[in-house]
Amino acid sequence: MSSSSSSTADLLARRRRLLAPTYGLFYEEPVHITRASGVWMYGPDGRAYLDVYNNVPVVGHCHPQVVEALAHQAALLNTHTRYLTEKPLELAERLLATFPSELATAIFTCTGSESNDLAIRVSKVATGGTGVIISEWAYHGTTETLAGMSPSSGMGRLGTHVYTVPAPIDQESASQFASRVQACIETMRAAGVKPAALLVDTIFSSDGVSADPPGYLAAAAEHVRAAGGLLIADEVQPGFGRTGHSMWGFQRHGVVPDLVTMGKPMGNGHPVSALIARPEVIAEFARQTRYFNTFGGNTVACAVALAVLDIIEQEQLITNAREIGAQLRRGLQELASRHPTLGAIRGAGLFIGAQITTGKAETTRIVNALRQRGVLIGSAGRNGDVLKIRPPLVFKQEHVDQLLGTLAQVL
Amino acid sequence: MSSSSSSTADLLARRRRLLAPTYGLFYEEPVHITRASGVWMYGPDGRAYLDVYNNVPVVGHCHPQVVEALAHQAALLNTHTRYLTEKPLELAERLLATFPSELATAIFTCTGSESNDLAIRVSKVATGGTGVIISEWAYHGTTETLAGMSPSSGMGRLGTHVYTVPAPIDQESASQFASRVQACIETMRAAGVKPAALLVDTIFSSDGVSADPPGYLAAAAEHVRAAGGLLIADEVQPGFGRTGHSMWGFQRHGVVPDLVTMGKPMGNGHPVSALIARPEVIAEFARQTRYFNTFGGNTVACAVALAVLDIIEQEQLITNAREIGAQLRRGLQELASRHPTLGAIRGAGLFIGAQITTGKAETTRIVNALRQRGVLIGSAGRNGDVLKIRPPLVFKQEHVDQLLGTLAQVL
Repeated sequence: MSSSSSSTADLLARRRRLLAPTYGLFYEEPVHITRASGVWMYGPDGRAYLDVYNNVPVVGHCHPQVVEALAHQAALLNTHTRYLTEKPLELAERLLATFPSELATAIFTCTGSESNDLAIRVSKVATGGTGVIISEWAYHGTTETLAGMSPSSGMGRLGTHVYTVPAPIDQESASQFASRVQACIETMRAAGVKPAALLVDTIFSSDGVSADPPGYLAAAAEHVRAAGGLLIADEVQPGFGRTGHSMWGFQRHGVVPDLVTMGKPMGNGHPVSALIARPEVIAEFARQTRYFNTFGGNTVACAVALAVLDIIEQEQLITNAREIGAQLRRGLQELASRHPTLGAIRGAGLFIGAQITTGKAETTRIVNALRQRGVLIGSAGRNGDVLKIRPPLVFKQEHVDQLLGTLAQVL
Repeated sequence: MSSSSSSTADLLARRRRLLAPTYGLFYEEPVHITRASGVWMYGPDGRAYLDVYNNVPVVGHCHPQVVEALAHQAALLNTHTRYLTEKPLELAERLLATFPSELATAIFTCTGSESNDLAIRVSKVATGGTGVIISEWAYHGTTETLAGMSPSSGMGRLGTHVYTVPAPIDQESASQFASRVQACIETMRAAGVKPAALLVDTIFSSDGVSADPPGYLAAAAEHVRAAGGLLIADEVQPGFGRTGHSMWGFQRHGVVPDLVTMGKPMGNGHPVSALIARPEVIAEFARQTRYFNTFGGNTVACAVALAVLDIIEQEQLITNAREIGAQLRRGLQELASRHPTLGAIRGAGLFIGAQITTGKAETTRIVNALRQRGVLIGSAGRNGDVLKIRPPLVFKQEHVDQLLGTLAQVL
């Protein structure tokens, strides 16, 4: 047994002993990682893995400017929002400037789950409704409320007054999305349930990545608003420029949501997240209750999030996501033309779903074979038959070449 | 207008413009803080405030060893638990070693709210019940589920199948606590509700701080277990040695809970938290679902939490909490003997509730007058008439003297 595999066996045994069986690992042969930098993750033997999966380290693993902002602020002041401090205000200013003017007020939280859970609370108070519409294979978070709105997390059971519509995963289902939302509202009405919100990941990540043709969200939002409900855009995965079009996924759709949630990449791995709202939507909630989140908007989290916004701008990562993403999609389409296993290539920017035409087992084989060859990706979709390609936004041409070359071998 | 008050006015205006009206500030004249160190927080004019309130920076604000661990790990690797890494296993080992052997498995989360919300999910699956018993003025977190279990957060409305019992805030109510829990179980039974859990902060922080006589929790837990429910110990506030007795508040009560949650001080301000469980309690939940928390147990959070555990041990902070806490309580009792405004002094270690006999308005006056004299504390309790004294555990004799001297002036 090599020293690498013996350390892997040791880590696996300790995980079984110490961590709850709720924990899962990626890959048939799990990867032991000891350091990371840019788009690379490294094993204890120095082996480099190309990270084509992790959206959290959006500006690249361990970006020195992020580490510096974190270390500097942590040494100076790490406190909460019940004192007056500069950082949360600087961050709110910078963040709100990336939104349409209607979305003018911010609440900071620690995780995408906390943001989505709060958005649901706010939508129920604002509308007086309780019904929530999600897509069939949605994922929105880990709280009790959100587990009931996350069929893809494996719980199976939907929460009370949660309704699903098929995700707009191809042209046909996209063209039917708005009318299916309308039908869902009618089902709710027949059951005596008043709608609170349509809650959607604006690129339908866990449903298998859907991006085209943009626009279907605007029509769906009209139906929901006509019925007294709100549009909540879950930007936890598509946000922060990943689509290569704009900072936020909803902007591709020409619609302005009532509430927008974000998380994962916001601190490049530091737990920081936010809910952005139309002020009139949050007014009644604020009249009824305070919301204090101990770590939400703390000075360190805000300093880190500011550094991430700086880097996205300085390194022009939205442009990079658009250009490199387009190259990658062209490359995948070219591969698909030679390999019938590879079907539709969906997505926008550096968020790509590649349909595997031969099902889940083959998808799993491809993901694991890529891992064996040093390329880390994942899978998604209701049938587990979509390659989920979502690298840090500092991905470059040479990394595209390595991914495509390795995928060609594996196919 | 001084430069300090003009900057305060500017910050207040920006907060109103940028942050949702759900945000609140401490004190009639809010405090602008620009840096902090140990037990001190500083304004932009260099004015020092003695921090007698914040339990989050448990080892002192900006402890260099915490900052170093954070900066070092953030530069090396910040990734999640779906790869094999050392840090979460090291942390689980160190943390579980502080628990009775029955509590043998860990799940990492980011906030106390996430831990409590998960504990509720687990308790419902483990018991098949839905009823949850809490204390009358409890606070357990910010999610939709927990807002319904946090009457003190101002929402007013309890969640479905949530029942309250009076907090064991004095000798009499402590002696009746177990029988009141039993009566509550009978009320639930009459309503056809099966109990899932008794969820309590083991020092009843928001109810006004209750510690003596310890032991009432054990009897209450027996009743709940006999009815098929679990005991969830919310250690978010009393945990990490604050009571001066042991690492966890429940240990003073001679009871072993089924689930234990923790948060706030775990990372000295870094968002990291955990749920510790009896393995048999979590088994069915794990069979039904995976639980993946993107930032929960990430390598940086774990490195920070390990540094906090190191410092608590190296600096003998549990002993310090016991000894300095005892001095502080004696000093407060001595003050109470001269000032009838000051009533019962409750608590354990460096978690003290001081009853103000003349009501909320006077409590508010005292808290604000202390702030004007450079001492930061808060209030708690259903009637808002309890001084909440909960400083970093590096509090020393000279800080006790300053607090008592200033309080004597104010009274």
